[in-house]
Amino acid sequence: MADLKILLSEKELPDRWYNVQADMPNLPKPPLHPVTREPVGPQDLAPIFPTDLILQEVSRERWIDIPDEVRDIYRLWRPSPLHRARRLEKALDTPARIYYKYEGVSPAGSHKLNTAVPQAYYNKKAGVRRLATETGAGQWGAALAQACSFFGLDCTVYMVKVSYHQKPYRRSVMQIFGSEVFASPTDRTASGRAVLAGNPDSPGSLGIAISEAVEDAATHADTNYALGSVLNHVLIHQSVIGLEAKKQMEKAGDYPDVVIACCGGGSNLGGIAMPFAHDRLVEDRKIRLVAAEPSACPTLTRGLCAYDFGDVAGLTPLLWMYTLGKDFMPPGIHAGGLRYHGDSPLVSRMVADGIMEARAYGQTDVFESAVVFARSEGVIPAPEAAHAIHCAVEEALAAREAGTPRVILFNLSGHGLLDLASYDAFLGGRLEDYALPEEQLGEAMAKLPAVE
Amino acid sequence: MADLKILLSEKELPDRWYNVQADMPNLPKPPLHPVTREPVGPQDLAPIFPTDLILQEVSRERWIDIPDEVRDIYRLWRPSPLHRARRLEKALDTPARIYYKYEGVSPAGSHKLNTAVPQAYYNKKAGVRRLATETGAGQWGAALAQACSFFGLDCTVYMVKVSYHQKPYRRSVMQIFGSEVFASPTDRTASGRAVLAGNPDSPGSLGIAISEAVEDAATHADTNYALGSVLNHVLIHQSVIGLEAKKQMEKAGDYPDVVIACCGGGSNLGGIAMPFAHDRLVEDRKIRLVAAEPSACPTLTRGLCAYDFGDVAGLTPLLWMYTLGKDFMPPGIHAGGLRYHGDSPLVSRMVADGIMEARAYGQTDVFESAVVFARSEGVIPAPEAAHAIHCAVEEALAAREAGTPRVILFNLSGHGLLDLASYDAFLGGRLEDYALPEEQLGEAMAKLPAVE
Repeated sequence: MADLKILLSEKELPDRWYNVQADMPNLPKPPLHPVTREPVGPQDLAPIFPTDLILQEVSRERWIDIPDEVRDIYRLWRPSPLHRARRLEKALDTPARIYYKYEGVSPAGSHKLNTAVPQAYYNKKAGVRRLATETGAGQWGAALAQACSFFGLDCTVYMVKVSYHQKPYRRSVMQIFGSEVFASPTDRTASGRAVLAGNPDSPGSLGIAISEAVEDAATHADTNYALGSVLNHVLIHQSVIGLEAKKQMEKAGDYPDVVIACCGGGSNLGGIAMPFAHDRLVEDRKIRLVAAEPSACPTLTRGLCAYDFGDVAGLTPLLWMYTLGKDFMPPGIHAGGLRYHGDSPLVSRMVADGIMEARAYGQTDVFESAVVFARSEGVIPAPEAAHAIHCAVEEALAAREAGTPRVILFNLSGHGLLDLASYDAFLGGRLEDYALPEEQLGEAMAKLPAVE
Repeated sequence: MADLKILLSEKELPDRWYNVQADMPNLPKPPLHPVTREPVGPQDLAPIFPTDLILQEVSRERWIDIPDEVRDIYRLWRPSPLHRARRLEKALDTPARIYYKYEGVSPAGSHKLNTAVPQAYYNKKAGVRRLATETGAGQWGAALAQACSFFGLDCTVYMVKVSYHQKPYRRSVMQIFGSEVFASPTDRTASGRAVLAGNPDSPGSLGIAISEAVEDAATHADTNYALGSVLNHVLIHQSVIGLEAKKQMEKAGDYPDVVIACCGGGSNLGGIAMPFAHDRLVEDRKIRLVAAEPSACPTLTRGLCAYDFGDVAGLTPLLWMYTLGKDFMPPGIHAGGLRYHGDSPLVSRMVADGIMEARAYGQTDVFESAVVFARSEGVIPAPEAAHAIHCAVEEALAAREAGTPRVILFNLSGHGLLDLASYDAFLGGRLEDYALPEEQLGEAMAKLPAVE
């Protein structure tokens, strides 16, 4: 019988990342300076990012070499396996052939390490001593902590206070890798102190934590800032997922009709989808690309494509993207990694241009599919990744309905072993679905910054 | 550069398990009936085990076919990777070449699934509807829950009450896979009710939980019992680890001078070591086999090799094994899976005969090595597996001292993502080492059952 897992040798690890900007019919509008509202130049980013990453951010080159030092770390777990989900197919009684790329084999447990490693590398190379970042649920913070440990960089993580206390184990992971982790808001930064002055018991937010990390980096010459999603260079690094998956599908003698990933900021989606978008854009292949998002934070399905800030305080450049408005406060769903008001500009452009589709799902349905998947394939998925699973299940059932085969590829971006409380809530019938009334959505979007 | 991971294709998955009993110069003394103290016969085991497993338990055949149905499940994650730990070698500045077999890639997160799957399979084949088992920390319960889910068996887990409340996430894993989990002692069994009558607030113990699971199986015609370690058939199933590792070492063009695993009941140790023991016993190869155990539960290094019960209540057959006495209560170290008073009879025989060595380590040293390993190789190890790591580090440093190369292979039996509280304790300086005075050890051993 054909193998369940399609593996690549380390020699088949890609030696170049793919940059979809080379092949897009339209590029996103450029980021604007938060004060002047003029396009941001490399010099504006230099205080917090190293030159190599700034060049990648604006690059139109199709291929970007992966440094050997990065590939040497990637080889600890990459190439990651592509699984044929035969047991899931059987459970769904579908004629569809379902494949999933499994990024949970990374030691950090998710795809986030794919960009954390090169970000740490380029900063080390630029002589930076320390990285500062923010983290919500902790996936990104854990990945960056690990990457910094590999390259001997110090790492400071501002972790949203409510998560710091609710998710002590992701904090433990960061500390095992030698990072310092602070519950944000802290009294270490002016932004943090300002928040605490107004409300000493503030639970924190991703927006506040971003402000603290950016300020920390901007005010220390030896320190830079690192972001785990949204930006172009992050999606470029993540392309290693899709590049491997293409080779693996070829080995399997198959090609996807549809490629699916969950979408928060868009980095795992961009990672798996962009190398296939190349085939659609350049080779005119018929392939659908689908973003699965939570209906509780429906940026792509119900948001506006417009300029908005990346953070709540309005300190970051304005990005042209699908957004629900920076002041939109999504309900407390368990897929914490998908609770972001905006999206990657590259993903946004492709959705706006009809190259990529988007669908939104309620978390009860998502967890139902997650359990079906776990019982079939063995892996307990992260709640974020379970959105992609649910979309794949929907496609597989549609194929059954139509009585025709369909080749489905999705990205399983991470495992859920540090998210088991959410499964407890689901199995205990304590999971809420949230309907978002139009007014609530409209409110934050009505306050989008004016850009002519 | 040579690959960091030595992979096997699914076609290279072993199709036979290895049974070291075919090659041992001396076998362990036979199990005795708890009442008659006569050797136990197959008919004594039939009420709780299926025939196929009983036959494996007493088999002297060198090779036992792995059923296709079991291999089809193994293929979800097997063959597991063998890693060359180059970054660890560098961190230790050692001329040793260090390899580790990584069993944490199993969806259950440890080697336990290697035996849970065939146990579920043979029971299903025998027409059993439900399996009952006990679990302490939860690794075994999670693996059996998953295996039962794969084969459509019901599963009842008696989880030591203190763990049930302290380790809710392992319980969640079992529930995701559809098992019912009870905090033991329960009022569902006579053994449980007897304990509760004496102490309604009993925190439970592995001994009590075993009694409940065995009673549940013995009193329900459609229900059998399953054990995750100690017994011969368990070690036979785990031989898949060592069989793969041998092929992988061959692919790497290397051969170990020493093979290391942690030892609680002995199943992961037996799994990796026995196929190499074959080389030592049959081909006279110079290879050392080392068991790493906690100094807080030093069965092999300070126990007696004698007949003893497997459980506290004295309901199981008497096993001839290294034991600290069934009444020995080990201190509450974080490697819960190594807190067992006895050992596999096969491992015991080999230690008694000098074929296998044993070393005991304090948990502070063990966690220190675990963190060095995590920062080098990326993987956060389970506290149990960290004992093997510490032993490997000791061997690597000895090689550096001697200025000679040494090939070290150890089994990384599982990851530590559900054990992060123990890392918190270590990093927070709250980890205790326990010295066991001779008197305390002597006390339980003085009460070993008399067998002429």
